[in-house]
Amino acid sequence: MRKVFQNELAKLEDELVTIARLVEQAISDATAAFKTSDIELAETVADRGSEIEQACNALDETAIDLLARQAPVASDLRLVVTALRISSSFARMSDYALHIANLARHRYPERAIPKGLKKYFVEMGRLDTEIVGRLIVMLREHDPRLLEEIDDVDDQIDELHVRVFEKVLSGRFADDEASIVDATLASRFHERFGDHAVSIAKRVADL
Amino acid sequence: MRKVFQNELAKLEDELVTIARLVEQAISDATAAFKTSDIELAETVADRGSEIEQACNALDETAIDLLARQAPVASDLRLVVTALRISSSFARMSDYALHIANLARHRYPERAIPKGLKKYFVEMGRLDTEIVGRLIVMLREHDPRLLEEIDDVDDQIDELHVRVFEKVLSGRFADDEASIVDATLASRFHERFGDHAVSIAKRVADL
Repeated sequence: MRKVFQNELAKLEDELVTIARLVEQAISDATAAFKTSDIELAETVADRGSEIEQACNALDETAIDLLARQAPVASDLRLVVTALRISSSFARMSDYALHIANLARHRYPERAIPKGLKKYFVEMGRLDTEIVGRLIVMLREHDPRLLEEIDDVDDQIDELHVRVFEKVLSGRFADDEASIVDATLASRFHERFGDHAVSIAKRVADL
Repeated sequence: MRKVFQNELAKLEDELVTIARLVEQAISDATAAFKTSDIELAETVADRGSEIEQACNALDETAIDLLARQAPVASDLRLVVTALRISSSFARMSDYALHIANLARHRYPERAIPKGLKKYFVEMGRLDTEIVGRLIVMLREHDPRLLEEIDDVDDQIDELHVRVFEKVLSGRFADDEASIVDATLASRFHERFGDHAVSIAKRVADL
């Protein structure tokens, strides 16, 4: 029974890693679509979003089925509940990737990325992709020291978020209302993406 | 055993209603603080946020404890897992109330609420408060028909969200960058608040 249970927990872990890889691709594509106003790429982010949602639902079913059949207690129980929560955070991260891609779609054929801010958003996207990469390693290796690294990457995202807002509020960012709205939302979406990554890392570290 | 379990489920439900009442107060206070730039009121929203976080953590512990001791299956198991998810959504709604209150704090002594948009945000706040009120009834009475009403209120919030963005993007909304940023974020926070309420209502309806 114990061995069966361990195999099932390993399956949950595999499913989380698969979801994380999809989220990594989604945020990378969303950043590129936002940068170049690439509508077709933005649409692949929407397709990937549906795929992630299905994968999260499947994982939730696996976890609930496991609770029902095995009735785990103590640390095993917490592990299954944690898997449910991590899947929910990944679903939110996928939503943020989709929101970023949608900014490109809504503003088309104009460029969604405001002039003078392109480099910040490209860097935020790179850090988002990096943070998911480290989460995948953490999910695989259960090394709590990775939490600190993930926290550092999130701090860098937060710094860029503050800088984008400073730029927008400075008045020197002389652009139209649409650019200000897009910059505000895109920056916020990247910041929240990073926050969710930290929240997942904390949950893994607490296991 | 069954009776004990039913009592414990009823306790979970009571805890959810208590959390919902705190969230209702938080969004109502946050809307008022945002409207009048009332710093002291904004700070009570932060205090209430900590209270809600503690209540959500306590509920999560009750639910996990219940899973461990009673090992529920089938619909009872889904009910406990649903309670965990609802508590997580209420925690997010509390965060959105706090974000709205923080817009008032960050912009003080300026008014955070952009000129010409005050009525929209007051109405969004009223609808947010109304939507939580209906959620509380739904949690108590388990009447799935309330989902439709909650969906309607959310549609009204979404309409106001679109109107705020139209106003901001129209160019007739001749205000400074800070007002555009605040309007964009506040409107988004209200919209997300409503979305979480619908997501909770769907979960209750599915039970």
